[in-house]
Amino acid sequence: MQDLLNEILDEVRPLIGQGKVADYIPALAGVAPDQLAIAVYSNDGELHVAGDARTAFSIQSISKVFSLVQAIGHSGEAIWQRLGHEPSGQPFNSLVQLEFERGRPRNPFINAGALVICDINQSRFAAPALSMRDFARRLAGNPELVIDNKVAESEYQYRARNAAMAYLMQAFGNFHNDVEAVLRSYFSHCALRMSCVDLARAFSFLANDGYCPHSGEQVLSARQVKQVNAIMATSGLYDEAGNFAYRVGLPGKSGVGGGIVAVVPGRFSVCVWSPELNAAGNSLAGMAALELLSQRIGWSVF
Amino acid sequence: MQDLLNEILDEVRPLIGQGKVADYIPALAGVAPDQLAIAVYSNDGELHVAGDARTAFSIQSISKVFSLVQAIGHSGEAIWQRLGHEPSGQPFNSLVQLEFERGRPRNPFINAGALVICDINQSRFAAPALSMRDFARRLAGNPELVIDNKVAESEYQYRARNAAMAYLMQAFGNFHNDVEAVLRSYFSHCALRMSCVDLARAFSFLANDGYCPHSGEQVLSARQVKQVNAIMATSGLYDEAGNFAYRVGLPGKSGVGGGIVAVVPGRFSVCVWSPELNAAGNSLAGMAALELLSQRIGWSVF
Amino acid sequence: MQDLLNEILDEVRPLIGQGKVADYIPALAGVAPDQLAIAVYSNDGELHVAGDARTAFSIQSISKVFSLVQAIGHSGEAIWQRLGHEPSGQPFNSLVQLEFERGRPRNPFINAGALVICDINQSRFAAPALSMRDFARRLAGNPELVIDNKVAESEYQYRARNAAMAYLMQAFGNFHNDVEAVLRSYFSHCALRMSCVDLARAFSFLANDGYCPHSGEQVLSARQVKQVNAIMATSGLYDEAGNFAYRVGLPGKSGVGGGIVAVVPGRFSVCVWSPELNAAGNSLAGMAALELLSQRIGWSVF
Amino acid sequence: MQDLLNEILDEVRPLIGQGKVADYIPALAGVAPDQLAIAVYSNDGELHVAGDARTAFSIQSISKVFSLVQAIGHSGEAIWQRLGHEPSGQPFNSLVQLEFERGRPRNPFINAGALVICDINQSRFAAPALSMRDFARRLAGNPELVIDNKVAESEYQYRARNAAMAYLMQAFGNFHNDVEAVLRSYFSHCALRMSCVDLARAFSFLANDGYCPHSGEQVLSARQVKQVNAIMATSGLYDEAGNFAYRVGLPGKSGVGGGIVAVVPGRFSVCVWSPELNAAGNSLAGMAALELLSQRIGWSVF
Repeated sequence: MQDLLNEILDEVRPLIGQGKVADYIPALAGVAPDQLAIAVYSNDGELHVAGDARTAFSIQSISKVFSLVQAIGHSGEAIWQRLGHEPSGQPFNSLVQLEFERGRPRNPFINAGALVICDINQSRFAAPALSMRDFARRLAGNPELVIDNKVAESEYQYRARNAAMAYLMQAFGNFHNDVEAVLRSYFSHCALRMSCVDLARAFSFLANDGYCPHSGEQVLSARQVKQVNAIMATSGLYDEAGNFAYRVGLPGKSGVGGGIVAVVPGRFSVCVWSPELNAAGNSLAGMAALELLSQRIGWSVF
Repeated sequence: MQDLLNEILDEVRPLIGQGKVADYIPALAGVAPDQLAIAVYSNDGELHVAGDARTAFSIQSISKVFSLVQAIGHSGEAIWQRLGHEPSGQPFNSLVQLEFERGRPRNPFINAGALVICDINQSRFAAPALSMRDFARRLAGNPELVIDNKVAESEYQYRARNAAMAYLMQAFGNFHNDVEAVLRSYFSHCALRMSCVDLARAFSFLANDGYCPHSGEQVLSARQVKQVNAIMATSGLYDEAGNFAYRVGLPGKSGVGGGIVAVVPGRFSVCVWSPELNAAGNSLAGMAALELLSQRIGWSVF
Repeated sequence: MQDLLNEILDEVRPLIGQGKVADYIPALAGVAPDQLAIAVYSNDGELHVAGDARTAFSIQSISKVFSLVQAIGHSGEAIWQRLGHEPSGQPFNSLVQLEFERGRPRNPFINAGALVICDINQSRFAAPALSMRDFARRLAGNPELVIDNKVAESEYQYRARNAAMAYLMQAFGNFHNDVEAVLRSYFSHCALRMSCVDLARAFSFLANDGYCPHSGEQVLSARQVKQVNAIMATSGLYDEAGNFAYRVGLPGKSGVGGGIVAVVPGRFSVCVWSPELNAAGNSLAGMAALELLSQRIGWSVF
Repeated sequence: MQDLLNEILDEVRPLIGQGKVADYIPALAGVAPDQLAIAVYSNDGELHVAGDARTAFSIQSISKVFSLVQAIGHSGEAIWQRLGHEPSGQPFNSLVQLEFERGRPRNPFINAGALVICDINQSRFAAPALSMRDFARRLAGNPELVIDNKVAESEYQYRARNAAMAYLMQAFGNFHNDVEAVLRSYFSHCALRMSCVDLARAFSFLANDGYCPHSGEQVLSARQVKQVNAIMATSGLYDEAGNFAYRVGLPGKSGVGGGIVAVVPGRFSVCVWSPELNAAGNSLAGMAALELLSQRIGWSVF
């Protein structure tokens, strides 16, 4: 495995330079583009890494899995009264579908859906951002994970489109807390910093029928885990979920920080990272690395 | 397995009466609504059935898998220049997305995408409908499969929306053959009659790395099979693909005739049938039966 | 004329009860539905009234004409860099078109366009709401016009959809001031209270080549007046502008308070009022009264 | 008047070269781009012309007025059960709005609406194209007007988008005759050849309360004329109707052949022609000429 990971990073490293680091906020635009990492964590507890696998980065939309899992944890099936679990077939931040479908987001991984999940969590937790950070700490077994407040603040300054979505949902009666407060929580979630090792460890419970080996918690039931993985498989990679299923064949979730996590049910959790993104907003080298890995080991669930 | 199938049909039978048989053409509206069947075919060649599993029905959109596989067979990756493999997030017959995306359908299982696949096959085969029928005969190991020409003709009479899509794609330069001729082929495909047993057997190659045990053909490569399964998993059930992944967790394809096929990669192919449909156009009792089956045997790939 | 106005109100009074008073905020929902009024002001200074023509009501979207005229006054053609003057073909508060057209509203009379105009005025005036109120006072020759702050505050509480629009335009770089501040100004404008007499007098300059007889101001040039009238004619009645042109044939502007103003270029300004609205959000009895008036006097410009 | 027309053509002639002749069919692409003409016909029967005012060109969408007037003539208000008279706010050939509004076109001057009008006429006339040609001959007082069958045939070859619209309306039950037959009629209408003089004379009845001085017919009632003019004013220039109202201020109708007709109610009918089009599909020099003419004579109805 170790040789394979090194080999794959060598193969995809030439792709660096062909993508584009997210630059919609200054705090992200400054990330060194030539970083590349992979970490694979097995259900047996074995960890294999290559590249900058212990360098923390901004997890961004990967945090949507954590907040979804928290919401399922305390509210279960009731959350689906507020949003769906269908793929959207639209850019991740479009308001068009949201207006046609009367303020009900298609799934928890487009921005509108993640905002509804944050709204649900806001009603439950006194300090949702810290609750989420602490949840991620337990899942990763790393008590030192931190939120980069400078990134969170910078995202808040550029909140216009997300604010538009939240207000549109409020107009349809599908947003219950103060919009500004929920946006603050949301951007704090996105600004959590984790490394590939942290993320591979933190997603282990999704490969492991809901059991987190680091905290000893049964985070979700086995059935709930299958459901979360199903949503990642159909909606986890923005408007490229179909392509990810086609090329990689695993449940996964990406973020504009350049990280992608994937789950091999019953066996492994994986995280790749490279800051340059493709046109769909997913890590360019990361996608390539996961495709090679999945093909060489035969990991596709299909 | 046999007991389980009987038990599941008994459990879902009370749902009959809660759905609605497809009635957009008279030839389909007349189907007896209380029919119910299941067939499971294992990679070892074992067949288990319950209910009306040998009764043939109109496979309708399930035929889109056959024509896609034919197109991949002769043209490989080149077909993706004409259409995508992303979920659509829209009703299966919407023209809105097709216009915004300039005549390029999102995937081969929405009607527009299936029409493009038929257009591709029309350029290759002298008699595309017969080629597809013969292909299905070989896959199912049943030389007696027939196209119901009355159904095909009736669908052609009600072709308006599909004709609109085909002409819109032609307007964007993404349709190469005569629209009327391709529509004829398309409706003939949909009018093929197969039973649950036929379909479970015919889809066996998708559970079996591309090898069809009945004809001895290697229909597709193992990698191509994973790709087709991935597209079924993200786009196979109209605008309910996410829900199917969430509840059943298998690649699948449905038709408005009330059939649903599903694939347990490496192990089984399955077909359920019950003519009454839910609001999304999928067999109501069939969905329920597959959900029970998947949960009780732990078949979800996620 | 006086007899005609009385006669018309008698004819349309039976329509009361067939519409619906705006009820999206409590402050508007409480208006007595059986009020009905008309005022006609000629370029010669003659005033004819019938019904409750001196009762003040919430002018709501009619204020969009005042703020547009203010913006043209200080910025001229430059405002068209920020918005268009094309009809929208969409409900007045839709975000769909706004997203497709990248944050550039179609015209100043849909909500998004009115918000852009308010944003332009916010950059120019220290207290935009008071500037607009004072402008309306001068145009009407009535120094006692007031803003109903209770209505303004109530609208602000229900600002979600307008906030969504403003933030969406900000996301596209087409909104320069603080969203909350501009929304406050916007709702204050809408909450101005004027009677039919006030409005007929205030719109007189649009029938009079830009000259306001009450203040003695040349408010706009003759050419600018034609332009404002043209925009009212194509976009002044929400998604019923075409119908208004078809039935009444005059430049006009309506508000959800139940008022409609119309201009007979070179001759008259008119205001009708009746609080109950039709499905398009325009005064039901008011539309009917204007249609009768236009037909009997042959006022249509077409 | 004569001097003014000459002067205006001199002023706008330098614009030739900045637009683009319609080239979607070969038969139109070959038109010499440097042609320019104007004709003004007064209700008193005076004709003033400048430039190539007796050269016939393809009237294209201007024919939509003739077919609308025919339909109003035989069916009156009943036609509005099939389509609206609201501006569309969309490109003239979009299917998006048509699908959202369930096959009911917004107005008779977008393609979908014109096709519905043709469908209505097809139910009434044995040979709709010849009926329309003969109607235009009578209106223009020119028995030699001809349809260019080569253009009609060429348009038919490129019918895909119009066919898509017609089939989509048929899918919604809003198309009653054979699609191909109606498309043939529609393209024949568009291929009628008329000069500026012919068109100025033919539109005279719309300036003249419905009376055609050449045939002596009362073509429409005075009220119907106001209605047709209102629809031209709000929807006559594709997605530039608002701009035409803003700049010219007259009811008008354009065609991709480069002609634009306009009506000065009670006084004149006008036609300009220059084949090069602006981005909205309207004659570039023609728009400029009408703007100058309207401003210098003070023709705007607003």
